[in-house]
Amino acid sequence: MQVGIDSFAAAYLEQSRAVSPADRVGELVEQIEHADQVGLDVFGIGEHHRKDYLDSAAAMILAAAAARTRQIRLTSAVAVLSAADPVRLFQQYATLDLLSQGRAEMVVGRGSSIEAFPLFGFRLEDYDALFAEKLELLLEIREHEQVHWSGKFRPALTGQGVYPRPLQNPLPIWLGVGGTPQSFARAGVLGLPLMVAIIGGEPRRFRPLVDLYRDAGRQAGHAPEQLKVGVHALGYVAATTEEAANEFFPGYAAAIASVAKERGWAGATRAGFDAT
Amino acid sequence: MQVGIDSFAAAYLEQSRAVSPADRVGELVEQIEHADQVGLDVFGIGEHHRKDYLDSAAAMILAAAAARTRQIRLTSAVAVLSAADPVRLFQQYATLDLLSQGRAEMVVGRGSSIEAFPLFGFRLEDYDALFAEKLELLLEIREHEQVHWSGKFRPALTGQGVYPRPLQNPLPIWLGVGGTPQSFARAGVLGLPLMVAIIGGEPRRFRPLVDLYRDAGRQAGHAPEQLKVGVHALGYVAATTEEAANEFFPGYAAAIASVAKERGWAGATRAGFDAT
Repeated sequence: MQVGIDSFAAAYLEQSRAVSPADRVGELVEQIEHADQVGLDVFGIGEHHRKDYLDSAAAMILAAAAARTRQIRLTSAVAVLSAADPVRLFQQYATLDLLSQGRAEMVVGRGSSIEAFPLFGFRLEDYDALFAEKLELLLEIREHEQVHWSGKFRPALTGQGVYPRPLQNPLPIWLGVGGTPQSFARAGVLGLPLMVAIIGGEPRRFRPLVDLYRDAGRQAGHAPEQLKVGVHALGYVAATTEEAANEFFPGYAAAIASVAKERGWAGATRAGFDAT
Repeated sequence: MQVGIDSFAAAYLEQSRAVSPADRVGELVEQIEHADQVGLDVFGIGEHHRKDYLDSAAAMILAAAAARTRQIRLTSAVAVLSAADPVRLFQQYATLDLLSQGRAEMVVGRGSSIEAFPLFGFRLEDYDALFAEKLELLLEIREHEQVHWSGKFRPALTGQGVYPRPLQNPLPIWLGVGGTPQSFARAGVLGLPLMVAIIGGEPRRFRPLVDLYRDAGRQAGHAPEQLKVGVHALGYVAATTEEAANEFFPGYAAAIASVAKERGWAGATRAGFDAT
């Protein structure tokens, strides 16, 4: 098992929004450096396009971290592939792979917060079609230096080369999923490693979906060891379970309340929290 | 006067193409670190999308350099704005500005080598219209956190915010020009600092064009101190002028011969070289 940390580069501290964004990003790079020194396996940066987060160009933060670390793997968590150009995204992570001597990974997803769609001129109605097409192109670029490809949402490629090529071949690409069964099945069919985002709800409820992933993968002929599963979840470490829960719950409840308001979810209760 | 170095991150050494791309990029970051230590003012990375260069995602290399340097300014040289999305480009350089505590700059241009156009689905017929429109949007994003804009080559923005915001306000944006008079005039009218690329030909021939820039700027009402001029040119340092010329000319002639073949230029002679 590998253990890592994901960050969305929040633009504020718990107490205040007054922290300087430059200091905040600098501290984040120092945190990644520290994570490398204590032996964590991986550090991921999310992608958002809103005032609250500083991670719209996540690969840039990872590039800075690559220059300060030696062992830790560096990944998107997740890159909003639906709203990106797979050519540019591959170029960035291939460059990250060179900068880090082969420590880059990508987790790509459809995007959980939706502000990237209007910003880059895509329609939410195409939410899944965009992702399917762009994933196809991204995997094509990973496999072939010269790319022949055409689709609906991006100009065709007629043999153009995409450079630089990464040091790792293939560059690891994970599929980031939420709770949509179709996404788990897609990852299995493609034989891609699966990263499950559990940002609320009980982990055990995801078990049938992981089984669906493994079944779809096996039926498509992929070897079991290729069908890796990762979990992105909220975490907090303290001396005892009770201490951790007491320290963590207030901030967690406030964060869930804020997301819940935007997405029409129910809020978090301490009883529900303790049960999971 | 400020002095700096630009690199295109060539994928090969003079002797061989066999160098590892990861080692080459690593050495480049070390060179930027060294340039910072000896007190150079600025380091720039170009943008190409071909096998010979490793700089397609130039901002990534600059981000790695930001984490290893303290004083030196870091810039694109040039970013091919015509084929880029100004939103993504601004996000990257704003992030670079945060990572470097306010040392980012951008030099944006129409692009000298043209492989970016088919790769990103743009037409060479739109060479100048693309640049004019994207420059307008880029400056709009620099000026306003929430952007209202519409154009021909990119979906409209109807008040979306572009984040993160850079530490420097305004983030320095230079206009990179070759030999086109219209480009010099445009930079003057907009009051943008000018970066003149002299990759062949005699520097003194550019004087009338620089005068054109300054006249256009003055007429548009910009203060003279705002109308800064930079030169990007080939350079080589040795103990004496003759030594420098003898060591530099063979490689220069070979490089010019290679570009000349592609673009239908004349090659370089030693007599012409010594005269400039």
